[in-house]
Amino acid sequence: MNPLVDDRLVSFLLYDLVDAPALCSLAYFEDHSRDTFELYVGSCRRIARDVLFPAYRPMDEEPPRLEDGRIRVHPSMHAIYPQLVDVGVLAATRPAEVGGQQLPMTVATLAHAYLMAANLSAYGYAALTTGAAHLIESFGDEPLRRELMTRMYEGRWTGTMALTEPQAGSSLADITTTAAPTEGGCYLVRGSKIFISGGDHDLTENVVNLTLARLVGAPPGTRGISLFAIPNRRLEDGALVDNDVSVAGAIHKIGWRGLPSLALSFGERGDCRGWLVGEPHHGLRQMFQMMNEARIMIGLNGAATASVAYHEAVEYARTRTQGRALGDRDPTRPPVPIVEHADVRRMLLRQKAIVDGAFALLATTARWADLWEHAADPAVRERSRLLLDLLTPVAKSFPAEHGFEANALAVQVHGGYGYSSEYLPEAWLRDQKLNSIHEGTTGIQSLDLLGRRVVAQGGAPLRLFGEEIAEAVARARRAGVNGAWCESVGRRFDLVASLTAELGARGLAGDVEGMLAHSADYLELFSILAVAWQHLRMATVAHERLAAGDERAPFLRGLLAGAQYWICTELPRVDHLADLCRSGEDSYLRLDPDWL
Amino acid sequence: MNPLVDDRLVSFLLYDLVDAPALCSLAYFEDHSRDTFELYVGSCRRIARDVLFPAYRPMDEEPPRLEDGRIRVHPSMHAIYPQLVDVGVLAATRPAEVGGQQLPMTVATLAHAYLMAANLSAYGYAALTTGAAHLIESFGDEPLRRELMTRMYEGRWTGTMALTEPQAGSSLADITTTAAPTEGGCYLVRGSKIFISGGDHDLTENVVNLTLARLVGAPPGTRGISLFAIPNRRLEDGALVDNDVSVAGAIHKIGWRGLPSLALSFGERGDCRGWLVGEPHHGLRQMFQMMNEARIMIGLNGAATASVAYHEAVEYARTRTQGRALGDRDPTRPPVPIVEHADVRRMLLRQKAIVDGAFALLATTARWADLWEHAADPAVRERSRLLLDLLTPVAKSFPAEHGFEANALAVQVHGGYGYSSEYLPEAWLRDQKLNSIHEGTTGIQSLDLLGRRVVAQGGAPLRLFGEEIAEAVARARRAGVNGAWCESVGRRFDLVASLTAELGARGLAGDVEGMLAHSADYLELFSILAVAWQHLRMATVAHERLAAGDERAPFLRGLLAGAQYWICTELPRVDHLADLCRSGEDSYLRLDPDWL
Repeated sequence: MNPLVDDRLVSFLLYDLVDAPALCSLAYFEDHSRDTFELYVGSCRRIARDVLFPAYRPMDEEPPRLEDGRIRVHPSMHAIYPQLVDVGVLAATRPAEVGGQQLPMTVATLAHAYLMAANLSAYGYAALTTGAAHLIESFGDEPLRRELMTRMYEGRWTGTMALTEPQAGSSLADITTTAAPTEGGCYLVRGSKIFISGGDHDLTENVVNLTLARLVGAPPGTRGISLFAIPNRRLEDGALVDNDVSVAGAIHKIGWRGLPSLALSFGERGDCRGWLVGEPHHGLRQMFQMMNEARIMIGLNGAATASVAYHEAVEYARTRTQGRALGDRDPTRPPVPIVEHADVRRMLLRQKAIVDGAFALLATTARWADLWEHAADPAVRERSRLLLDLLTPVAKSFPAEHGFEANALAVQVHGGYGYSSEYLPEAWLRDQKLNSIHEGTTGIQSLDLLGRRVVAQGGAPLRLFGEEIAEAVARARRAGVNGAWCESVGRRFDLVASLTAELGARGLAGDVEGMLAHSADYLELFSILAVAWQHLRMATVAHERLAAGDERAPFLRGLLAGAQYWICTELPRVDHLADLCRSGEDSYLRLDPDWL
Repeated sequence: MNPLVDDRLVSFLLYDLVDAPALCSLAYFEDHSRDTFELYVGSCRRIARDVLFPAYRPMDEEPPRLEDGRIRVHPSMHAIYPQLVDVGVLAATRPAEVGGQQLPMTVATLAHAYLMAANLSAYGYAALTTGAAHLIESFGDEPLRRELMTRMYEGRWTGTMALTEPQAGSSLADITTTAAPTEGGCYLVRGSKIFISGGDHDLTENVVNLTLARLVGAPPGTRGISLFAIPNRRLEDGALVDNDVSVAGAIHKIGWRGLPSLALSFGERGDCRGWLVGEPHHGLRQMFQMMNEARIMIGLNGAATASVAYHEAVEYARTRTQGRALGDRDPTRPPVPIVEHADVRRMLLRQKAIVDGAFALLATTARWADLWEHAADPAVRERSRLLLDLLTPVAKSFPAEHGFEANALAVQVHGGYGYSSEYLPEAWLRDQKLNSIHEGTTGIQSLDLLGRRVVAQGGAPLRLFGEEIAEAVARARRAGVNGAWCESVGRRFDLVASLTAELGARGLAGDVEGMLAHSADYLELFSILAVAWQHLRMATVAHERLAAGDERAPFLRGLLAGAQYWICTELPRVDHLADLCRSGEDSYLRLDPDWL
């Protein structure tokens, strides 16, 4: 039975690495303890394994159907969703006043990783609902909170994020959906959206689309965008009536096949009502306040999808026998499990280093999110906000890009069987590919990181990151971690800092194109360093625990092996990538499209 | 309309880079000329575009069905296969005496690239038939050539390679299929094979499986393996009768879906007859004489699959508008084609560098295959054989591994649409994944390269490779190619040579595990260098032609951009990879499987 996520890793991250129980000293979490954390993680883990995972394959094989203009989801979902609601997934981190459990994001992140690893699509309905309800919770007025948010957090309605339009794609400045005021205070909306996950279904009685649109007469570009809540059916005199939101088509996705991705039309009959959420023209800014959260969730999707495939590959490699040790040419001896072959172990350890590194990074960023929102000390809040902001593009894109690589390795470990849809790794490979595309492509993350986040506030976030790394290196040295590893991580941070200063200066001098030419390489080197930092932290704690005679020795030694692998084989790549950023190598910058 | 492969590239490779017409001075090719080459390439190109490509999507959507124990292929195949036969694909390179056209492999390789890019599965039936018939042509006796080979080259029967068994996988030493002699000279065969592509179908009246099996009483291991021809139906008194070969199951592959991959059972009723091909116990050796050819074909599959996706991505990037130039914040200006964005150009140029580099390498190896078989001078033949042998694992695995990366980039360029099965890039991504698995996984290629090929004959092949590189560097300097590129390529060869000597010495001293610990990294660095060498060669010719006022300036400038990209961004990675090989970094070597 695939564990989905390694229980030992989750426990290590929560209690050994980021000390989640320490968060209980903050007022918001004061009713919690390690026991309540364990209860929640245990509940999610149980339904992930018992309910969501068995439905994964059937849901992948039979995607939702469009019938008479309505989406019918897979029958399994009707049993799954109420259980997600019962466990309290929807409002796990939200305040008690809106029906939430006030759990730390740190805990919810790792608990929900099981649900994602088990069945991304099934969890997706819940995640989107939480995100949409949270927008109303943050910016909506009292009637919207009462009428819409409450029903969403209670699991009676679901939610979506409706940003993308067919003609605009990633360029939100170009969206054209419009909203005209009515006398009743709501707006008449017209427009088309695409790639709306969960935009219609028969799972609950209604769907609320948190939609970006322009007020009539609004300025062009991103400054003229407002946020609206547009339910598929609206309440009139206590009854739900059609709100003129229609399904224009279903996208045939290659993964996440249990969750419909739709083209929606608003107001084809001129009768689609939307309600303004927050301030006019502040829609994009409001949406982006949620975006860090959404991006960390995508990173978690990536880590979880790499995790479940990694565990499948480990089990296969332990049980599948084939070939013999190097140099053993005696065919009368029985073949060995393929995990004995060095190259198979390489593929498994690489997957493990990616998965463990991604989860550690995500746990760390989730803890910053908790501190930012709930620490009593404003200085701690500000520090956490800056670090979270800095690392978000990495936490989103590293698991997506390197997770895809890990998923491909899981297929490879399975050999010819991995190429068959009778085995699961190929399905996770398909699922994973979306994570480099949605919620901002990797290209957009790279421009965001280098063009905005590392140079923000005179480089303050990067200096804080340097402090985190210096502290990790110092503690690693004290714990007796290999000195070369410590030196390697510390030196690469210095390199990244000087590189960033140089590129920032180039931008300030007006050469923005030169500054950003290698943003993809910059994101990659920054990610490698961030993950190396996490591996160093994990290795440090592993050392400390082993020295204290901890009984988890095999697991802790595995963490050390992963750290060695990442720091010795991957981290040195930073040097070459930094050279590229610095040199401004211009092959594709000065490429004429006619040369292609 | 997707060109599948760039006509300008094919022409450049054949006539500017490897000078295919010069091969016509060899006796075997004396009836050929540039005109006959063009005729053949043109025919393949035409049916690829007009016949095979339109059937690609339908064949992917409706794989062959297993009905009453027989495989029914997609209806399109019944129209396609006769056209492949008519063009002369089956025996393009084979001698006139067996009905062939005696074309150079160099020409056939690039002509067939169009067929593969159009529809891998459709071409697969032909490629497998050629390979199987070629085995009989090389090792079979006269009756087998007359009865089996002729029918296969004529297109009346098809062929397969039946090596893999369920319990043995890549470990051919462990195959257990047995063959017992009969009085009639043939053998009674019993056993099971798996992943047999085209092992049954209703496309032609018969299939001949070139099968590895053990004579009763043969020694264990690879030395006891013989080669048999086992038709699904055998000729008795001029009529075809059932030969007790049954379809035990069909693999549900994730790509190559037009070509069935089957589990076959031989002799369930004790009545399966096979005919020995060549010498008893020489089966594996004979099969491996064909293996270089098969592996180069897999490399070509990889390059072609990356090529068709690259062209799709270029066209999409030129026509899809989205966003504006960096720093242009005026939303009233129209959006630009996404090819204007630096990161999109990066993704396209990376794909191009992989595709062009792979095709150049394959054209170069194909030319060596031609010289090895047909040069008059034994020294030229031997030199070509050694170089072909050395570069084959690279020509097989580079297009498979980096082609997969290129295919993923083609999906990424398409954004959300790339994640939909209504667009083609996702299908090519699925197709490509097989190429790192079949005909020897990438792991096996890496052991083969470092453990055997680079150290063969006291390093003679590597010295010849060094001569090739030195010559390419000298010509590049004369042509005025950027001196830094020349220096970079030359220096990396020296590095690879000294690294190889060091690793070889380690192996000779008994530390085979240490020698091969980083075989994956070695294969990668060797591949990067080999492809850089090809880019340097292409850049040299491009320089020479541009200086002569050649009218293909945009295309030639594109080659220079690809060369710059590869040599400046990818080649420096060799240094780090060589460090890993040399250091013997041991994280996964000493990994205890219990730590995973």
